[in-house]
Amino acid sequence: MPAINPERLLADLQRLRQFGAVGNGVVRPALSAIDIESRTWLRDRMRAAGLDATIDGIGTVFGRSTRPGPALIIGSHTDTQPQGGWLDGAMGVMYGLEVARAFAESGDCADLAVDVASWMDEEGRFAHFVGSRAFFELLPESEFETARAPDGESLGAALERAAYAGRERVCYEPARHRAYLEAHVEQGGRLEADGLRIGVVSAIVGIRAFRISFEGEQNHAGTTPMAVRRDAAMALIRFAHALDARFASLAADNTVWTFGNITVSPGAESIVPGGAELYVQFRDADAGVLDSFEAAVRECVADATDQAPVDVTLSGKTTDAAPAVMDPALQTFIADAAERRAPSQWIRMPSGAGHDAQVTAPLLPSGMLFVPSIGGISHSFAEDTDSDDIVLGCQVLADAAEAFLRTQR
Amino acid sequence: MPAINPERLLADLQRLRQFGAVGNGVVRPALSAIDIESRTWLRDRMRAAGLDATIDGIGTVFGRSTRPGPALIIGSHTDTQPQGGWLDGAMGVMYGLEVARAFAESGDCADLAVDVASWMDEEGRFAHFVGSRAFFELLPESEFETARAPDGESLGAALERAAYAGRERVCYEPARHRAYLEAHVEQGGRLEADGLRIGVVSAIVGIRAFRISFEGEQNHAGTTPMAVRRDAAMALIRFAHALDARFASLAADNTVWTFGNITVSPGAESIVPGGAELYVQFRDADAGVLDSFEAAVRECVADATDQAPVDVTLSGKTTDAAPAVMDPALQTFIADAAERRAPSQWIRMPSGAGHDAQVTAPLLPSGMLFVPSIGGISHSFAEDTDSDDIVLGCQVLADAAEAFLRTQR
Repeated sequence: MPAINPERLLADLQRLRQFGAVGNGVVRPALSAIDIESRTWLRDRMRAAGLDATIDGIGTVFGRSTRPGPALIIGSHTDTQPQGGWLDGAMGVMYGLEVARAFAESGDCADLAVDVASWMDEEGRFAHFVGSRAFFELLPESEFETARAPDGESLGAALERAAYAGRERVCYEPARHRAYLEAHVEQGGRLEADGLRIGVVSAIVGIRAFRISFEGEQNHAGTTPMAVRRDAAMALIRFAHALDARFASLAADNTVWTFGNITVSPGAESIVPGGAELYVQFRDADAGVLDSFEAAVRECVADATDQAPVDVTLSGKTTDAAPAVMDPALQTFIADAAERRAPSQWIRMPSGAGHDAQVTAPLLPSGMLFVPSIGGISHSFAEDTDSDDIVLGCQVLADAAEAFLRTQR
Repeated sequence: MPAINPERLLADLQRLRQFGAVGNGVVRPALSAIDIESRTWLRDRMRAAGLDATIDGIGTVFGRSTRPGPALIIGSHTDTQPQGGWLDGAMGVMYGLEVARAFAESGDCADLAVDVASWMDEEGRFAHFVGSRAFFELLPESEFETARAPDGESLGAALERAAYAGRERVCYEPARHRAYLEAHVEQGGRLEADGLRIGVVSAIVGIRAFRISFEGEQNHAGTTPMAVRRDAAMALIRFAHALDARFASLAADNTVWTFGNITVSPGAESIVPGGAELYVQFRDADAGVLDSFEAAVRECVADATDQAPVDVTLSGKTTDAAPAVMDPALQTFIADAAERRAPSQWIRMPSGAGHDAQVTAPLLPSGMLFVPSIGGISHSFAEDTDSDDIVLGCQVLADAAEAFLRTQR
């Protein structure tokens, strides 16, 4: 069995953390100067591990095993949120590197091929899942112009700036690539709350989101009788309250919904608001639940239009990601390894967050493994995981990778 | 009888409109650069009319008649809402100037004293009624530090910037000042709907307002189960919905309430909001109704604190203006003049909007006159009034002013 090297894994994670470190957290958004610097370092670490490593034309760092296939890809992302945690993405990439090294050092596993990937821009600074989509040739050329960072720079311009533009892009090789594995911090509090150490991901939830606009008539808050008002904020409050109740009646066990932003225009104490906008997002692993939620949104929009003298408009979907079921065989390999390394300290669970594995899953058998997040905190400088859990997760992943690859001989 | 000069009145109104003109509307918030510029122009116009004019230590422009008292003050304000109408406030000030000029030109009235005021910051960019409160020495010194514009600048700092700080403040002179008259656009649609041209204001409604803050916990919108969320936006929606229903059950015929702004923090599609804030304002001419509404706010805050794992905090009142009854004798002078100039085309009515006259009314007999607002629109670039109505209102005010001052000899 391959034995990972805990000290080496943790040391590389700490070194990667230094690129963009701010207190306990990391600021390393995709294609920022520090992100570009870290990619060069990562490529060199891959080369030092004997991988045929490159930063490709989209900025993905890919370390190809020199062994012939069949190969397993292990990866995640090294870009961060604007105020990110040090493990979100980074841990999954360094797991891939450590598993590749552990295989190379183990007589038994030295002939097993592990390719390691750090996909460009998982967090969506320009657009979500840029690297994994490009790998499967699912990235429209138009996004080089339309996908833009908050500062306005286009993806294409940023790739030029990084000197990645024009390089060859690493792509999916059907004859070689048999599966994808991704490890990640949970980003929620379920494992910790239940005293567990490994989550075997059953599915990544689908996400749909809308913006709903309310257009009434701006007027004076003192001189406009209630009966003649066309109050956009009041219409929004009634709409949101009704929609929340509908959602609660339709929700499955793990469905979540969020009204992440509300804006009111012009937004003054003494003015009846003429405009208002509501963000609505919901997630579930079952597309049927997503469909029922979407129908509820559309019905509430129709009801609101009937009830209030305010125009209610539903935007096109601002997010529309289908649920992704993780490959049952890969789930079993991870579960078996977890049971061996941490008996009874693991569960199967859905992922409420999005991951590159949702891009790979429809095209390549994909599996995911979670380790606990302390306090359930994520997308925050405070994100952290116990070292013992980091090490355990990597060993479980190595075991599962070996077991899978042996079935491919 | 004094005859006002319609062309001169309208020309001055159009000139004032150019300070901060944006389309049909005006952007001239108190102590903005353009407001400061307009005050100098106004002072000079007052001087040209023979008034002893000054911009005082609080920024109020005051044109004192050179005649001995008894004097009548006619005024309003020239600051605007962030997106204001061109007549709101401005018309009442220019009426004062035109009446002063008409008196000076009329043999009969040349000995009658009219002082003209443009009170600082009626609209409450820093705090409501700054100028009229200062005139009666009702402005606490602490507000120079605590009253702040949306950009964070304090009233004191803004007065320094304008070079008004340190100047003498114009104050109420009990031996001289016998009454206050203010004309204004209606800011509602009642006169227009009934085909009327003059409103004789019976009372100004009281206003109370609060900000209510919701503090929960920011978290990931995918990985945080509904049961453990401390969602500030959802708490706000439930609170606002419940409060609106309570208000509807308590309202008198003319009570109005407005939730003029909602903010959510950090305000992103994929983040459970950790903070939210709601503005609540209500108005009625009956203090008992205001008391019952305030009690409802406090009960809903207590209920929300019990029901949700979110901290709900009620600010001190952001506005607290008592209802103000207009002086019956002044109402009669205005009504008599209206009946003479526009027979049967006037009514007595309450003002749903706040005005400086509510500050003056408890201390000095005060009266108000309304002219119609086209479409009832106000606090909007679209605010407007027919020129014929603007001219009529000024003539009615001049007649009423003369009649009142003759009783004071």
